[in-house]
Amino acid sequence: MERKASLLVLGGIVVTMDESSTVIEGGGVAIDGPRIVAVGPAGEIEAACRGEDTEIIDAGGRLVVPGLVNTHTHASDILFRGLVEDLPLELWLERLWQVERELVRPASVAAGARLAQAEMIRGGTTTALDMFFFPEEAVAVARQAGFRLATGPFFFDSPDIDGIEPRERAPRARELLEELRDEALIIPCMLAHSTYTVAPWLLEEARDLAAEFGTLFSTHVAETRAEVETVRRMHGCSPPHHLDRLGVLEVPNVLAHCVHLGDDEIGLLAERRSAVAHCPMSNLKLGSGVAPVPSFRRAGVRTTLGTDGPVSSNDLDLWSTLRLGAVLHKGVAEDPRLMPSREVFAHATIEGARALGMGERIGSIESGKEADLVIIDLDRPHLVPLHDVYAHLVYAVGRDDVRTVLIRGRAVMRDRRLTTIDERAAMEEVAEFAARLRRRRAFAG
Amino acid sequence: MERKASLLVLGGIVVTMDESSTVIEGGGVAIDGPRIVAVGPAGEIEAACRGEDTEIIDAGGRLVVPGLVNTHTHASDILFRGLVEDLPLELWLERLWQVERELVRPASVAAGARLAQAEMIRGGTTTALDMFFFPEEAVAVARQAGFRLATGPFFFDSPDIDGIEPRERAPRARELLEELRDEALIIPCMLAHSTYTVAPWLLEEARDLAAEFGTLFSTHVAETRAEVETVRRMHGCSPPHHLDRLGVLEVPNVLAHCVHLGDDEIGLLAERRSAVAHCPMSNLKLGSGVAPVPSFRRAGVRTTLGTDGPVSSNDLDLWSTLRLGAVLHKGVAEDPRLMPSREVFAHATIEGARALGMGERIGSIESGKEADLVIIDLDRPHLVPLHDVYAHLVYAVGRDDVRTVLIRGRAVMRDRRLTTIDERAAMEEVAEFAARLRRRRAFAG
Repeated sequence: MERKASLLVLGGIVVTMDESSTVIEGGGVAIDGPRIVAVGPAGEIEAACRGEDTEIIDAGGRLVVPGLVNTHTHASDILFRGLVEDLPLELWLERLWQVERELVRPASVAAGARLAQAEMIRGGTTTALDMFFFPEEAVAVARQAGFRLATGPFFFDSPDIDGIEPRERAPRARELLEELRDEALIIPCMLAHSTYTVAPWLLEEARDLAAEFGTLFSTHVAETRAEVETVRRMHGCSPPHHLDRLGVLEVPNVLAHCVHLGDDEIGLLAERRSAVAHCPMSNLKLGSGVAPVPSFRRAGVRTTLGTDGPVSSNDLDLWSTLRLGAVLHKGVAEDPRLMPSREVFAHATIEGARALGMGERIGSIESGKEADLVIIDLDRPHLVPLHDVYAHLVYAVGRDDVRTVLIRGRAVMRDRRLTTIDERAAMEEVAEFAARLRRRRAFAG
Repeated sequence: MERKASLLVLGGIVVTMDESSTVIEGGGVAIDGPRIVAVGPAGEIEAACRGEDTEIIDAGGRLVVPGLVNTHTHASDILFRGLVEDLPLELWLERLWQVERELVRPASVAAGARLAQAEMIRGGTTTALDMFFFPEEAVAVARQAGFRLATGPFFFDSPDIDGIEPRERAPRARELLEELRDEALIIPCMLAHSTYTVAPWLLEEARDLAAEFGTLFSTHVAETRAEVETVRRMHGCSPPHHLDRLGVLEVPNVLAHCVHLGDDEIGLLAERRSAVAHCPMSNLKLGSGVAPVPSFRRAGVRTTLGTDGPVSSNDLDLWSTLRLGAVLHKGVAEDPRLMPSREVFAHATIEGARALGMGERIGSIESGKEADLVIIDLDRPHLVPLHDVYAHLVYAVGRDDVRTVLIRGRAVMRDRRLTTIDERAAMEEVAEFAARLRRRRAFAG
């Protein structure tokens, strides 16, 4: 503890999410550069780690929690928020792809990513797995924003949206993965749309690249009943078994949705140590159904939380997702003992980090980890009184209670002001895009 | 339109919620005293209604919507937010009543009501049906806060919490109802806890008083399976039929929850023109189940939205309730066409107003109605772009986007500053109450 820190966060209720669920009232976090170097009572931390140039953030009367981890989104779909409503997934996708074919270009993807990362930072999300076309655009935005992004090459049979022919995907992917090696903020992933939109040979290529580069693999799995039927018809088995037969589940993987799985598939996921990205808001809104999360927990399948893209969810707010992820299963199973709040908060922090292969680096507030921290105001009518800190985090705190956000020790939002993204320019750019889209449709219609 | 207005709200997107679902871009609302006197394009409204002393609120680039109506809460339970977690309703109530017996006093009820009304105003709720002990306390707070409160005498067999013996309830109720006659902001109600905690003769007394004073009647109905079984055992029929046999459904009524009803009961509710206060957050969190809202709609039963009390929900946020009320039934029924966003927004505005017998006075932005208005900021990353105004209101807008709130033409929140409640004092009073409660429990434990 002799080491002087560059930054001290002092005085808050520190919810560490470490193995022992340590909560420190009047706690302190010492940060040196990107890394946490000490956590403990504020007085001790200050005495041990405060040097002459140490910067201080006063967290007195506030909560200090790990940054939230969103394990499934399509951030640039923010461009189309509210555009495709009240349709089942299959028709919704058809409509969305039609719009995307017309309008998804590198520049619009970058504009969407910029606004999406602004929205996520404002809401205390510090890491997101983002599956989208032209991933290099979101990467460029994240580098500038200081946002932690899990992303990488996107595999999809159709070249209609991003212009990449199937045979070109692997070579292009290799180039991008080379480029993303050893970047502090980027978590490289191999991303494939699904087992019904990506041919087996292409999934195998994605698997091989993931294994070669040591990256995560992520795809949509069993989101709707119709998807499961389609995959059974196409491949003679369910989506997880199809992936497993192709050897895809041998690499570390995050499977998004997993709404329609039986015990057999759940057992397979447990065996393969797959993580599920549970996206309750999107699954409900699209009428996809309710994922069997209590069964995942019983089987030992790692469960994490995702917002899905803002066309289906319709925002990137992990707090409402947390809350829904907790109450939904209690209500549907008529058992309020399910999904205790501490555990659900873990889904959005340390479990999310582990699912992304980052469990040693982020997801909790512990010495040695990187400093992805969120400081939350408590002096709001809806946050008084505070009787139970985890119930508060899951059921009462919202995106607008977030005051300050650190990613790798850097304050990307300080006292509610974004420091790395010109938020007004980002909003104007997307609003202008939407206005052009409306004019175009008015002419077309 | 010759009449000069005292206040003009100019330039926003006005979502009127009138019969034709009129939305006016660049709209204006003219208000004179408590009442709306004209609604239309901003330019016309300004030309016709602006006088020398007319005050102007600039709503340019914002949404202007009717104030939200919360048809079921126990606001002063805010004192116990987060105190009783992860229990089924019956054990939860037992535990809550134990705490309430110890701690519910007129002064604590007033403190709770003050903070709760601050939270509701901040979130754009302008009217709430509040069922609680010592209702005169919440009434006194509402008079001062300028908040529109539906409340009145509370009927409950046990005198343990409020000290009122069953035989004393009706005479005391009469006194309160006399006092509440003709108050501009108070909507008098007869409130009974439930069919298993209020004896039939007492329900009959409540019914008679409601009929005599022309008030609404409200009670909890079929919240859990266990309740329905208990009522069947006690009275030989389901809760709605028991109420109907006692003649209670002859008076205008709002039935909270209605989670466990069959087609027969739903038909009865339609016939009696009962309104349901759907409380999805509370019903899920307590493991009570999912109310058959799509069946209510098909049967023509009026559906409205409630947050329930902040011990079960755990806040008073109607926006998260709106969102959940929309996505839940789509997801559970696996049909995204259910619960279109315009209709769900109506549940929280005009339908809520109608359920409270206030359909002619509030719930929409129309000339002749009282001015309960909410102005919502749109220059936030999570609200850009705006493609669909109702999808925005149901799926993206949150409590912290509310900028200004008018109730009866009075700005109870102006540019995010509460004008009638000392918010800091209200938070401190409740925080101090909670601290005493913790010390007491520490000694007891």
